[in-house]
Amino acid sequence: MTQSRRIVLAARPHGRPQPSDFRMETAELPSPGEGEVLLQTLYLSLDPYMRGRMNDVKSYAAPVEIGAVMEGGTVSRVLESRNPALRAGDIVLSHSGWQSHAVADGAALRKLDPAAAPVTTALGVLGMPGFTAYAGLLTIGKPKAGETLVVAAASGAVGSAVGQIAKIKGARVVGIAGGPEKCAFVRDELGFDAAIDHRAPDFAEQLKAACPQGIDVYFENVGGHVWDAVFPLFNEFARIPVCGLIAQYNSSGKAQTDRLPATMREVLSRSLTIRGFIQREFVDQRKDFYGEMTGWIAEGRVRYREDIVDGLENAPEAFMGLLEGKNFGKLVVKIAD
Amino acid sequence: MTQSRRIVLAARPHGRPQPSDFRMETAELPSPGEGEVLLQTLYLSLDPYMRGRMNDVKSYAAPVEIGAVMEGGTVSRVLESRNPALRAGDIVLSHSGWQSHAVADGAALRKLDPAAAPVTTALGVLGMPGFTAYAGLLTIGKPKAGETLVVAAASGAVGSAVGQIAKIKGARVVGIAGGPEKCAFVRDELGFDAAIDHRAPDFAEQLKAACPQGIDVYFENVGGHVWDAVFPLFNEFARIPVCGLIAQYNSSGKAQTDRLPATMREVLSRSLTIRGFIQREFVDQRKDFYGEMTGWIAEGRVRYREDIVDGLENAPEAFMGLLEGKNFGKLVVKIAD
Repeated sequence: MTQSRRIVLAARPHGRPQPSDFRMETAELPSPGEGEVLLQTLYLSLDPYMRGRMNDVKSYAAPVEIGAVMEGGTVSRVLESRNPALRAGDIVLSHSGWQSHAVADGAALRKLDPAAAPVTTALGVLGMPGFTAYAGLLTIGKPKAGETLVVAAASGAVGSAVGQIAKIKGARVVGIAGGPEKCAFVRDELGFDAAIDHRAPDFAEQLKAACPQGIDVYFENVGGHVWDAVFPLFNEFARIPVCGLIAQYNSSGKAQTDRLPATMREVLSRSLTIRGFIQREFVDQRKDFYGEMTGWIAEGRVRYREDIVDGLENAPEAFMGLLEGKNFGKLVVKIAD
Repeated sequence: MTQSRRIVLAARPHGRPQPSDFRMETAELPSPGEGEVLLQTLYLSLDPYMRGRMNDVKSYAAPVEIGAVMEGGTVSRVLESRNPALRAGDIVLSHSGWQSHAVADGAALRKLDPAAAPVTTALGVLGMPGFTAYAGLLTIGKPKAGETLVVAAASGAVGSAVGQIAKIKGARVVGIAGGPEKCAFVRDELGFDAAIDHRAPDFAEQLKAACPQGIDVYFENVGGHVWDAVFPLFNEFARIPVCGLIAQYNSSGKAQTDRLPATMREVLSRSLTIRGFIQREFVDQRKDFYGEMTGWIAEGRVRYREDIVDGLENAPEAFMGLLEGKNFGKLVVKIAD
């Protein structure tokens, strides 16, 4: 019998998650059945979408049940296989969740080639976040040469890919990030045209100055007060792919104003497109994504940064930090060597 | 010298326009120059977009200046021509505004064939409102057979065309209108699958019952409290073309709630598309529109209703009524025989 250390959802958070919303447990795993494999988790991805799964509301995916293992993508090693396509020692992309071991259907796994790219990239720039950036930007955002694109969380997994792909397409790219260190990284390492610190007291003025031609694409992956600064700058026919709302649009200080009328007026008068999406909608673009993104990384045109936290027991704190922008790069938890 | 009776913008309205916001004047017109024509207005179109032009705010078109003639599309007769393409007696589509006569560049006019269709249709079902319905519905709304479409102001110029075209495309069509008479017209004369009176106290419940499969397309041409009833019913991937906001989204009773966060959350979780548009964006579809729409009218598949008010002096009152839904069909002012 294999024991799995796991983190389960102990309680549904109200607002920000608390340590008491998570609980560490140990569970016995069944032996793998026909077609299944026993997996050891090497790396666990932490992503903003997980906050939504902690709520008991209708959304694009079912919520995590109370007492169930927190969901999440993983890079895992096959320990034991009853699936002819996989053997012990193989490294795979799985969705094992916040736990040290798991039994999974081999057909649901993607085998990774550790020689082609560091395996952690399957959770980031070559994984779901990178694909979210690629598909949402190219299908909905459609940046054209000379246009201005703005993206927030610009040092993060999605934002950094959005900005760099938009640069490849010839757009002027302005990143928003939290703090001078991240802004320097976005500008100097990722090659964005400008980087604005959303914590600056004159953030809105700085953003306006960095977008002298207005904004043609705003890739919305944060919500919150960034929207209020971006909104007045939209050009006619601006496109707004919406893939995430970390800050839940809880704009402090504006809670008593209904922003919907003004938003809809501008949607009309500037012919704006606001389009929500989940990456799985664009599954038929995955092959193009792997091909193009791998090439861009090899050419040094797309760079990425990972923020690796050690130990499953540190996942809750790292996740809570993610929601406050404390990570610096794609947040991954290392569970085993 | 020809004298033109005209209605000018006397003051910018706050909220609903008042009679004092308009002023009747008489002005001397210059003689037509080279390439120009002298026009007599036969019919003036009154449309919701004119309310926006009365405001001094940046929008998709410049505002009407204080003291300037109110803007508007017209069907006019050529009285005198210095343009070789037109001669006295020709009937043209013009943009002469709220006045009895005008001098215009002949190149900006479209000659109408009174034998092909009643000339007033050039202001409605075969004009800007009909084209707004056609282009917005087919390019953004994209109704598919078996889907559910909802449109408000369903007995009006845009809404009636939206619903009937969607029926031709095989959608289930639910119209929203004000009062039992309009609802009966929408259901019995236009052939919508259902018609809901937005004044009914249980309007939201009736709408829900009429959309058992949810809503796939909501053609937004009114704003206001209809949005709140429609919003909870959107299916995944619903499309929301936005072409007008008569009620300015001033939802009574909900003014203290910021509806933007909930809206953006649903945009994300249901992969909604909200897309504002002005019909001129789709100018390259005009030829297809004239061809298809003329055919549908001839076959009896698209019907229309006109509400014709007599006399330029009655235009302000008719326009104020339009903003409150008092018209029944495309509102047109007859200025001369």
